[in-house]
Amino acid sequence: MKRNIYLRMKGLHEACNLVLRASNWEDLLEEEEIPVREARGRVTSRALYAKRSIPTFNAAAMDGIAVKAEETFSASEFQPLRLRLGKQAFWVNTGEPLPPRTNAVIMIEDLHQTDQESVEIMAPAYPWQHVRKVGEDVTEGELLFTKGHFLEAWDLGALLAAGYLTVPVKRRPQVVIIPTGDELLFPEEAQEESLRQGKTVEFNSVVLASLIEEWGGRCEVLPIVPDNFEALKEALDQALARKPQLVAILAGSSAGSKDYTAMLIKERGKLLFHGVTMMPGKPVLFGVVEGKGVFGVPGYPVSAVMAFEKLVRPVFEAMYGASLPGRPSLEAYAGRKIPSRLGVTEFVRVRVGQVAGKKVFLPLKRGAGAITTLTKAEAILTIPEHSEGVLAGEKCRLEILRPGWDLESAILVVGSHDLGLDLLAEFLKKRDYRLELSTAHVGSLSGLVAVRDGLAHIAGTHLFDPESGTFNIPYIKRYLPDTPVKLIHFAFREQGLILPPGNPKGIKSLEDLVRPEIRFVNRQPGAGTRVLLDYHLERLGLDPKEIQGYENEENTHLGVAVAVATQQADVGLGIAAAAKLLGLEFIPLFQERYDLLVRKDFFSSRAFALILEVLRDRAFRDKVAGLGGYEVSRMGELLYEA
Amino acid sequence: MKRNIYLRMKGLHEACNLVLRASNWEDLLEEEEIPVREARGRVTSRALYAKRSIPTFNAAAMDGIAVKAEETFSASEFQPLRLRLGKQAFWVNTGEPLPPRTNAVIMIEDLHQTDQESVEIMAPAYPWQHVRKVGEDVTEGELLFTKGHFLEAWDLGALLAAGYLTVPVKRRPQVVIIPTGDELLFPEEAQEESLRQGKTVEFNSVVLASLIEEWGGRCEVLPIVPDNFEALKEALDQALARKPQLVAILAGSSAGSKDYTAMLIKERGKLLFHGVTMMPGKPVLFGVVEGKGVFGVPGYPVSAVMAFEKLVRPVFEAMYGASLPGRPSLEAYAGRKIPSRLGVTEFVRVRVGQVAGKKVFLPLKRGAGAITTLTKAEAILTIPEHSEGVLAGEKCRLEILRPGWDLESAILVVGSHDLGLDLLAEFLKKRDYRLELSTAHVGSLSGLVAVRDGLAHIAGTHLFDPESGTFNIPYIKRYLPDTPVKLIHFAFREQGLILPPGNPKGIKSLEDLVRPEIRFVNRQPGAGTRVLLDYHLERLGLDPKEIQGYENEENTHLGVAVAVATQQADVGLGIAAAAKLLGLEFIPLFQERYDLLVRKDFFSSRAFALILEVLRDRAFRDKVAGLGGYEVSRMGELLYEA
Repeated sequence: MKRNIYLRMKGLHEACNLVLRASNWEDLLEEEEIPVREARGRVTSRALYAKRSIPTFNAAAMDGIAVKAEETFSASEFQPLRLRLGKQAFWVNTGEPLPPRTNAVIMIEDLHQTDQESVEIMAPAYPWQHVRKVGEDVTEGELLFTKGHFLEAWDLGALLAAGYLTVPVKRRPQVVIIPTGDELLFPEEAQEESLRQGKTVEFNSVVLASLIEEWGGRCEVLPIVPDNFEALKEALDQALARKPQLVAILAGSSAGSKDYTAMLIKERGKLLFHGVTMMPGKPVLFGVVEGKGVFGVPGYPVSAVMAFEKLVRPVFEAMYGASLPGRPSLEAYAGRKIPSRLGVTEFVRVRVGQVAGKKVFLPLKRGAGAITTLTKAEAILTIPEHSEGVLAGEKCRLEILRPGWDLESAILVVGSHDLGLDLLAEFLKKRDYRLELSTAHVGSLSGLVAVRDGLAHIAGTHLFDPESGTFNIPYIKRYLPDTPVKLIHFAFREQGLILPPGNPKGIKSLEDLVRPEIRFVNRQPGAGTRVLLDYHLERLGLDPKEIQGYENEENTHLGVAVAVATQQADVGLGIAAAAKLLGLEFIPLFQERYDLLVRKDFFSSRAFALILEVLRDRAFRDKVAGLGGYEVSRMGELLYEA
Repeated sequence: MKRNIYLRMKGLHEACNLVLRASNWEDLLEEEEIPVREARGRVTSRALYAKRSIPTFNAAAMDGIAVKAEETFSASEFQPLRLRLGKQAFWVNTGEPLPPRTNAVIMIEDLHQTDQESVEIMAPAYPWQHVRKVGEDVTEGELLFTKGHFLEAWDLGALLAAGYLTVPVKRRPQVVIIPTGDELLFPEEAQEESLRQGKTVEFNSVVLASLIEEWGGRCEVLPIVPDNFEALKEALDQALARKPQLVAILAGSSAGSKDYTAMLIKERGKLLFHGVTMMPGKPVLFGVVEGKGVFGVPGYPVSAVMAFEKLVRPVFEAMYGASLPGRPSLEAYAGRKIPSRLGVTEFVRVRVGQVAGKKVFLPLKRGAGAITTLTKAEAILTIPEHSEGVLAGEKCRLEILRPGWDLESAILVVGSHDLGLDLLAEFLKKRDYRLELSTAHVGSLSGLVAVRDGLAHIAGTHLFDPESGTFNIPYIKRYLPDTPVKLIHFAFREQGLILPPGNPKGIKSLEDLVRPEIRFVNRQPGAGTRVLLDYHLERLGLDPKEIQGYENEENTHLGVAVAVATQQADVGLGIAAAAKLLGLEFIPLFQERYDLLVRKDFFSSRAFALILEVLRDRAFRDKVAGLGGYEVSRMGELLYEA
């Protein structure tokens, strides 16, 4: 079987330079003349000089009377001067032209109207006082904007005032996207059944087309091309026939056996690089075919986005001859060590929050396949290729991904996962839309540690202590002896066996887990459910080694339920709500207490006051109870303080 | 004559609160269901939970072979294990489903293919190695987005993958704009003649409609309403009939005699405030009519923009239940003292640059009528109401106005104005689109001082020294004895008399300026042209007091030319190019040297190397020469160094 290998793997900087030098990008976009009214966000295609002055006449800059300044010189506080209206003084509103032979305006506040025919002034006016003179703002012939200027809303005003009705701008860049892959289905065509059997929803083209649109371009997406060299060749011809500035072939750029893009570009034109030392985004390639730039874009969604951001976006800027809006940045401290491979530029998606006055960030999963590492991230950390990563506590500059996001209002909830937290996020946002509950599911124990280390405001926890037979408090005393915290009750939950509908294997209790034909799905160490399981296994004298799938770990209740629902496992241990949500059977085994551990400094904040309000809200409690297996009557009670 | 007075003038914060409490904004926007493909930038109208898991099957996370991990446990470096293809090992590409009964993937890099039928491995695989398990990214039922979430490009991917083809979003906010004013003409209808006689181009509606569009709203602009109470009343009825969330009446909100907006709102509904202690933007008002918010927006363009930014934008955020993208900010040092009135929130438009490694900013003109104070500004400084302004050298936080703008590439040129500088900006941008030449016309002497004080990279200067009979160098020695600088020659220019076409008053020389019927237009003190004039007047024994208009000052050559062209003056002194541009007559009097004074630290930068390249470029020199009255053969020569 013939397979590609990464040829000419390049550093990101070098790759970017190769792309930028591959064509005379700045000359590719033709000029078009469009109405100024529609030109916001467009880029000027030439320098624009004012066709007329602004203002076009001498105008009053204040409401009041227009006068000839020289006729007011004798006025003083001791000797007020009376001016005849219609002869020496003329009412003017702001913006109105000065009557002939006047050259100054006296503000209404400085006038005393004696009668219908005259006004009195107590001070002289100087020439051109409160007058906007012809050309004061813009003089005819003055440079308004250089070529390559992004037009803002107010720029349109200046153009209209300076005599432009239409404006020459660069045409929008045109990109044709070719999605490839036997396994892909457009979302509209995807059936649940085929998705379970290996088909995948093609959504990269929508994400990338949206980015192109955001950058001011236009995008056409061709039909999905199967993994077939001839079909790809034909699609590329179709794409080139549309005369775009760029073609992007999605997937098919890595080293798999069906990755024909590199081969095709080599046959049809020149391949400039295949593979860039960046992560995500490594399997990106670029070449030139018939004078057009052709990108091979990785199939993983995060890789595709990063390849576009780092290599396609600069091409847009080169075509415009102007910089696209940059991302705002901020400095924050790494909440943990983040190692990175030397020689690779890495883009780590991170969550950011401010705990106890300190800005901290934590990395999300690093898999390029997980689109949620972008949707859940507030920012991106770039680890340059000459670095081996960042140390815990290191100060780093982050790029903010979500423009409207506000650091001050991000509430970091780290720890055990509960479906009620999603509802809490929803109800909290109704009370103040700025408050974002940002949750990370790492298990109860890791949550406690995050609160201790100032990396989270709140931890969701349900840790059973076998010695005392109680929940959470012994762990808090042991792991956070010195951290001022409060423990607030959230809910009692039923834990039990999650089973397929109809319970085909007739599982009744934990004892059944050791039956040889039963495949179990477990939770990760440190999860409250795992602690509970291990305790009960020991109590019942059951050996974990005898349980098939004991080492098969999921990080959330829903993960366990999905494993059962998709027949990867016959049984799992989890909460009733997860079983109910996926229509699975549930055998309750124990009731457990799920609490929220809160840092004291955060407890006294307005944000937490609103959380407490939600916890006491009848509607919220009903909704949580409705998830199944919840006892909510004591929500919000203070259980412990240290 | 009846005039309004500002009633209930409010602080900005209080005004904003009054607006936000005037309606239940968050419930005003209805929900609509739109295709996910078109949803970028829209705001979710409810919390969205995943309808299916991502991935929907166990998928290979690497290219390689799928195996059952348990069958590989015996493999080691010393005892490689051979696996039969199609039986124990199956080729898989990234993203493909695992064949039945396999649970791990071994990367292609770790394989040795022995023949067509088998591969060899040197290490065991562990279960679920390089496998993306069902639901690993998103599990069915998991919260994807809360209500009030701005959808980014990648969010669309998550929605499509999680089973959404359409998404419930809030409808776009609807605003109706009513422009008012007898003097206004829509740009398409404006004739040059009427513009010179007091008509004004109505462009505020375009600027504000563009802002609304930028914020995700829709806007309808009604025909211009004359200054007439009944007409305005009718227009408001028309606007309300369109059922918008907001109405904005442009102009007519100040205290002029034709400002009917406050009166109308009081008659038809409730006026909540009239006037806010902010500058620009003071004459803004707000009320509620038939349950709709109605803004009276000031007529000055910068006031209108600031009123919209500070009061209308928060309404949009309240309607969305989400924050709009914030402006990036940066810290910089004030280049000069900026006083501000206590009790007024002031928004100062500023230019920003980095000179000798230090970020500095300088205020632009403060007039709210000058749209160029927005188009030329890189940032805005907010001076809060409790402050009397900022001191020279004070560190301030600025909001960046132009998203693509890059501090590092802003070149500050302060000093005398020359039309060749506009061309230099144009040519420089062609060489590197990131380089922005940002010019401020303050006269030669102020330019020298700005270079000395680290507030500018370059000063354009043409200061004549009567004692030595030379240009610039004596001034540099006197005013910048300690600053390392280089003086680079730009061009020789002809200075002379700028006269109306046909020279109706028969002016021939400076001696004519003292003729009693001649109205002169002068330049400001410190301008090179003014120094030259004063020198020659003294030499000729002419008394400035005898010159009518000697105190009538313009800040640029073009300003002088415009004053002559619009018959505000009969003659001015300036450069040939300004006269040529406006089709005026010109009588050359003297040749002068216009040079560029450059800080040494900037001289050695790449940016200045490119400027020198431009100065030596034949095409550039020809273009400058073509302006008229320029001698360009020695451009770029080093004249002096200190």
